[in-house]
Amino acid sequence: MSAATLPETWMARALKLAERGRYTTDPNPRVGCVLVKEERVVGEGWHERAGEPHAEVHALRAAGEAARGATAYVTLEPCSHQGRTGPCARALVEAGVAQVVVAMQDPNPQVAGRGIALLREAAIEVTVGVLEDEALALNSGFVMRMSHGRPFVRLKMAMSLDGRTAMRSGESQWITGPQARREVQRLRARSSAILTGVESIIFDNARLTVRAEQLALPDGEAIAARQPLRVVVDSRLRLPQAAACLREPGRTLVATLADHEPERRARLEEAGAEVVVMPAAADGRVDLDALLHHLAEAEQANEVLLETGATLAGAMLEANLIDEMQLFVAPTLLGGEARPLFALPGLSLMAQQKGVEILDIRAVGQDWRITARPTRPTMSAS
Amino acid sequence: MSAATLPETWMARALKLAERGRYTTDPNPRVGCVLVKEERVVGEGWHERAGEPHAEVHALRAAGEAARGATAYVTLEPCSHQGRTGPCARALVEAGVAQVVVAMQDPNPQVAGRGIALLREAAIEVTVGVLEDEALALNSGFVMRMSHGRPFVRLKMAMSLDGRTAMRSGESQWITGPQARREVQRLRARSSAILTGVESIIFDNARLTVRAEQLALPDGEAIAARQPLRVVVDSRLRLPQAAACLREPGRTLVATLADHEPERRARLEEAGAEVVVMPAAADGRVDLDALLHHLAEAEQANEVLLETGATLAGAMLEANLIDEMQLFVAPTLLGGEARPLFALPGLSLMAQQKGVEILDIRAVGQDWRITARPTRPTMSAS
Repeated sequence: MSAATLPETWMARALKLAERGRYTTDPNPRVGCVLVKEERVVGEGWHERAGEPHAEVHALRAAGEAARGATAYVTLEPCSHQGRTGPCARALVEAGVAQVVVAMQDPNPQVAGRGIALLREAAIEVTVGVLEDEALALNSGFVMRMSHGRPFVRLKMAMSLDGRTAMRSGESQWITGPQARREVQRLRARSSAILTGVESIIFDNARLTVRAEQLALPDGEAIAARQPLRVVVDSRLRLPQAAACLREPGRTLVATLADHEPERRARLEEAGAEVVVMPAAADGRVDLDALLHHLAEAEQANEVLLETGATLAGAMLEANLIDEMQLFVAPTLLGGEARPLFALPGLSLMAQQKGVEILDIRAVGQDWRITARPTRPTMSAS
Repeated sequence: MSAATLPETWMARALKLAERGRYTTDPNPRVGCVLVKEERVVGEGWHERAGEPHAEVHALRAAGEAARGATAYVTLEPCSHQGRTGPCARALVEAGVAQVVVAMQDPNPQVAGRGIALLREAAIEVTVGVLEDEALALNSGFVMRMSHGRPFVRLKMAMSLDGRTAMRSGESQWITGPQARREVQRLRARSSAILTGVESIIFDNARLTVRAEQLALPDGEAIAARQPLRVVVDSRLRLPQAAACLREPGRTLVATLADHEPERRARLEEAGAEVVVMPAAADGRVDLDALLHHLAEAEQANEVLLETGATLAGAMLEANLIDEMQLFVAPTLLGGEARPLFALPGLSLMAQQKGVEILDIRAVGQDWRITARPTRPTMSAS
């Protein structure tokens, strides 16, 4: 007889299942569950959509009586609170599950260990922390919102090999090829919101939508039925009423400051925008940290995709509000007159440079995709 | 009995041998030779140093009488002219070699098929073109000089992830880490000349030398005994007499225009520089194409390493004089105020963008190395 399957192997399977909810569980976390008895899967499931059953419920239903005595592998601590689908920890107890292996504790303050405690009170053996890093990465947005009260911010930029996003005039369409654009569509589709600056809209008139046909996914239509919230940082309410994004399915939120003519606001609202007033930061513009907290609290935003120009990108970087960068590098050179990635006006010495960690570089069609994250605090020259 | 070894396999071995001369054969090409009889190597060799025997001579000496009836695999057409070591084609005939397999014809107009003809006249069967691309790449500089009268130009730049080479002030030391700097040392060591602009010297006071200890190669001392020619583009003869590069081993050539005070020139020559007068291009600065042709003709320069700032790099790119780019990308961001890779003042429309082909991206310590080449003519937006 061969050796017993490792807990990590079953958990990897549960994580794979959880990933099927990548584009659909928002604002809930992605969760997968595998029920194993005598080295055999007796039931499995994943959370598909907010309002629908949790992963454990699907798995228990699939297992039926076979759940009794089984070990449950769950990517997130089973919930303890009476949500729309009842507490999953209770359901596992009632089904007679013998053991529960959990990848990570639920950072949701409504759970935060109570699900695990409930299981242990029922004399179920609980193991926590199997493939925890992978589970955290799967729900980086949900975890960030629950533990820091703001969403996980992913910056996406398309750049030339010499670090330029557009010509000086703003001309920028089609730097990268179709595969890179498909990846960007998928980044949008997994996000709760897309954050941009009003100047990006003025230059590009971008729609900032998920287009089903460009996702190239089997369930593209269902995914595109949920459009991420579009958020425009617009301190002076300059968003044109005719902006294309205002006519697209889904909501557009305009974040502005208090002291504006109500007339402009009324006109924008008439055009379909929702206007939210934010406090001003020290630089007199919209306080970005406050905006992110608003998006977490009022909009339950887990992952925010930042698609914007150098000014807002630089301000977000300066404020340490960027968690991940997805840079799509096109095989082209635009020269020193073209637009930069980040405006960092306060940076003039090498000692002030912003360190990043490059996590991955891979080819995407004719382009290259660099995944990086800022290192904090500011790295000294090495 | 197993199948006969492929000609490509023997030629790959000959190419490997040729590569041992990477840092030492200048201005000659790198050449390797393998003599095979009855599926066995009976002699092999490579060209080690200008003035010393060619690869074929080494291989024939090693084989002795066993060369009779053997097949010679040579990475470059054997020479036909009476050089310092006699025509190799003749030596192969006299040794009684039965067959010769050649990777590429010699682009040297003194040979250019005459070596092959000489062999065929002696009834030796000659095959040409086995691993030809690899052989061409091995001697891209020699091939460029022989066929186009100018060296192969390799641009090296150290940049931040956002495409910046230095702060606005010029501060730039240590963007990349020690492994990347070692790679740069090796790029210098394989080059005939290092080309820079006077502003780079003024900002950095770079020595532009090969340092034996930084090569991390077993024969570092011998390699560093040949210092590549340092070439400074200096239209207005602004090179400081105190420039560090003037006090280093090896020669420094200053390329300037005709109408300058002879006093400055005399002072620079006194400080150790050699001054060469070049024609002016349309922009009133040193004609870069003319300079490259001068380096090929007067200095037998095969590979030139371009280590410079945005102005000269941009001018070289505009003039289509860059053949390869080695970009070392450090995991840092310097912001939009910092210095760009390429000044391309004439480029203002996406349709004018400079296309490049990315050939390779790989990690080098904490940094990443991108190998690319410009695509000509200018790529249209895609």
